[in-house]
Amino acid sequence: MYVHDTIAAISTPPGNGGIGIVRISGEQAADIATAIFKPVCNGGLISHRFYFGVVTDPMDGDVIDESMAVLMRAPRSYTREDVFEIHCHGGMLVVDQVLSLCLKHGARLADPGEFTRRAFLNGRIDLVQAESVMDIISSKSEAALRLAQHQREGLLSRRIEEIHKDLLHALALVEAYIDFPEDDLGEADLSSIFDRVQSARIIIDNLLSGFDDGRVLREGISVLIIGKPNAGKSSLLNRLLNENRAIVTHIPGTTRDIIEETLNIGGLPVRLLDSAGIRHTDDLVEQEGIRRALDKIPQADLVLFVMDASHSFDQEDQLIFEGLKESRLIGVLNKSDLPPKLELPEYCQGMTCVPISAHTGEGVDLLRDHICRCFLHGSAIDSREFIAISRARHHDALVSAESILQRFLQGIQVKVELELLAVDLREALRAVGSVTGQSTPDDILDVIFSSFCIGK
Amino acid sequence: MYVHDTIAAISTPPGNGGIGIVRISGEQAADIATAIFKPVCNGGLISHRFYFGVVTDPMDGDVIDESMAVLMRAPRSYTREDVFEIHCHGGMLVVDQVLSLCLKHGARLADPGEFTRRAFLNGRIDLVQAESVMDIISSKSEAALRLAQHQREGLLSRRIEEIHKDLLHALALVEAYIDFPEDDLGEADLSSIFDRVQSARIIIDNLLSGFDDGRVLREGISVLIIGKPNAGKSSLLNRLLNENRAIVTHIPGTTRDIIEETLNIGGLPVRLLDSAGIRHTDDLVEQEGIRRALDKIPQADLVLFVMDASHSFDQEDQLIFEGLKESRLIGVLNKSDLPPKLELPEYCQGMTCVPISAHTGEGVDLLRDHICRCFLHGSAIDSREFIAISRARHHDALVSAESILQRFLQGIQVKVELELLAVDLREALRAVGSVTGQSTPDDILDVIFSSFCIGK
Repeated sequence: MYVHDTIAAISTPPGNGGIGIVRISGEQAADIATAIFKPVCNGGLISHRFYFGVVTDPMDGDVIDESMAVLMRAPRSYTREDVFEIHCHGGMLVVDQVLSLCLKHGARLADPGEFTRRAFLNGRIDLVQAESVMDIISSKSEAALRLAQHQREGLLSRRIEEIHKDLLHALALVEAYIDFPEDDLGEADLSSIFDRVQSARIIIDNLLSGFDDGRVLREGISVLIIGKPNAGKSSLLNRLLNENRAIVTHIPGTTRDIIEETLNIGGLPVRLLDSAGIRHTDDLVEQEGIRRALDKIPQADLVLFVMDASHSFDQEDQLIFEGLKESRLIGVLNKSDLPPKLELPEYCQGMTCVPISAHTGEGVDLLRDHICRCFLHGSAIDSREFIAISRARHHDALVSAESILQRFLQGIQVKVELELLAVDLREALRAVGSVTGQSTPDDILDVIFSSFCIGK
Repeated sequence: MYVHDTIAAISTPPGNGGIGIVRISGEQAADIATAIFKPVCNGGLISHRFYFGVVTDPMDGDVIDESMAVLMRAPRSYTREDVFEIHCHGGMLVVDQVLSLCLKHGARLADPGEFTRRAFLNGRIDLVQAESVMDIISSKSEAALRLAQHQREGLLSRRIEEIHKDLLHALALVEAYIDFPEDDLGEADLSSIFDRVQSARIIIDNLLSGFDDGRVLREGISVLIIGKPNAGKSSLLNRLLNENRAIVTHIPGTTRDIIEETLNIGGLPVRLLDSAGIRHTDDLVEQEGIRRALDKIPQADLVLFVMDASHSFDQEDQLIFEGLKESRLIGVLNKSDLPPKLELPEYCQGMTCVPISAHTGEGVDLLRDHICRCFLHGSAIDSREFIAISRARHHDALVSAESILQRFLQGIQVKVELELLAVDLREALRAVGSVTGQSTPDDILDVIFSSFCIGK
């Protein structure tokens, strides 16, 4: 549902900086602008002109801040409504005061993503583009950002549009025959329908096959480092981060809390978790640390099982390995700079292993490469043109469309009634249309936009 | 020294938000704008118009982001140079990419505060106003913000200007006689000089007397909560914060790390520190906590010595009290909701005490009031018109001017040579002028602006 009131929010990141922006959108935006902002050069506010002036509380004449401001008249604005932006000094308190003043003058505090939601509801962008806006803001790697920019530019939407057009065309042909129940589907039309639906399916399959890469780029992955005490887990973390993040000592049990850092491996955003060394211990805090480490195993997208290659594989290694059976796993044979002693038992032979030295850095690039290729495939890594769906919502909608189309094609072969075939096509169209927002119910929109940041 | 190259920086706070701004200032700003920004509606960029378009890397045609942009031609800009602002999506990565593009096209990364420094060097604002910009951004309470806004509006500068005018006038009179060495200072001129210098001194004294309040508003104060285990220190912290910040249990020694929070007490920005209860203990971590608590005592602007009023004053209290002799102190008699048992020994009688119950909240408002009035005086608390100096730099300059003027007045009474009197006046003028930047050397400017945030 579209409420036509006037909304306001702080659109710059929280915290102190040079400039803070309060954005107002809605029918009252221009009135509020006139009430609280006085340009230094007198006169009315012309749309899309950037004015210098003061924000003043008209109640007591108090100057809140000196600022720049711009009024963007509908429809030439982000929301396609009248938008007024105040660019004041970027301190938390002063930006808050300007926002309060807007709220006192009739604006309502905007919900997260409400500006973008209005841009969508007013037809300036479709739902995929709206979602991409948030992906652009939160993307943690260049590859993820590029994917999001492609979605914002409408490259994904155009693919979805092609599917839509194919299915609409097929539906038109089917419906033409419904009007003449005495006719069977002609050979030419049958093949035309078949071609259109197949063409749609190819695009759908294509998009679905890129989903894993797209999602991984968008969401990133979590990588848990696990192993015995003193296998070199924290050294590996520091080496991957290229900094001295975790305290490293020769005392077993140095790390107790989970240490979490994000980094970028070949364009892939990675949350890296270092954990307590797994062993039997009487130290209560260390026990708790080990419990937390083990707890993280099922949540990790990848486990790096760090072993000390200068010692033999012992019972503790074996116990840890057994706990990792369900996990995607890379064995890290650390301390390759020391004389090798480790021989992996037969039951470990299936595990991909990378010898490294966290101490010298040897092998760490190869490990990075292995991590990356566990998750990303050729086009996502190499191509600047990679277009993919990256949200579960898109994936589920296309999977559902795909299975309906399969049913449709089976139905057409066994000459199911045309009305039923038409129902299938309409259902598939609705599923595809829900991706770009042509047919997305309000409650789904609520969920989508609630994950946005305030002020966007 | 003023370097005329083109500078660029991110002007919005770090982090993710709706909008991120990259600001460019200097002679090349317009060229860079033309090179990397393509407005949707073609044509050149007119000053102070707000354009929608795309930021594109001209090397490979890659679209970096969709954005708004505005060119502000000199002198109608923040720096009085050509300024170009790009308002892109507020993600860290995308804003960084836009900034990189600007740097690739000839801009240099701006130093902290360099935009404001140029505004000062180009005469748009004086040094007090430049400093106030940073105070506005970082102010932590409304009263502090109001003080900074007054300084930005030039209210403090005008007072300094009055001093300057008085002293210039006095100097002119003195110099008139220097040209006629045969004449003694006439009675009328003598009294005129005297009046002018006295008038300047009154303003100086006035500003100096507001300094404590001004500084406290600008910098805030640190308040350390100290006392025996289970006296209710963490409960008091939670009560003052109105939230459940610190873990409170009946187990003595619950708090070990220093817990630090900022809050606002009657317009005064306060850093509140809760600490481990002081007692003899064998627990190593607790011992470390106690050591850290005691370490904080000399740095605290105020210590809240929390006692349990439902128990008697014991040797531990006495030991703590003895450690606080050098500190500004308020005794907090906690647990006023329980039957009272505490009797303060005679040597504690000088200490201001406030009975409270952290449990029920009783007396806490009174305590807030006491904390506030320890530091702020009438006008700073009550008046919206409070104008004061708030930086040690201003204070030192005015103290130095004041002592020179005292010497001058003594000199005039004992008929010191006019040349020497003129030297004094010129020195006082220089001291006063250094506040507003009329006579501030480069290295001092370096220090001042280096405390600014990037992008301002």
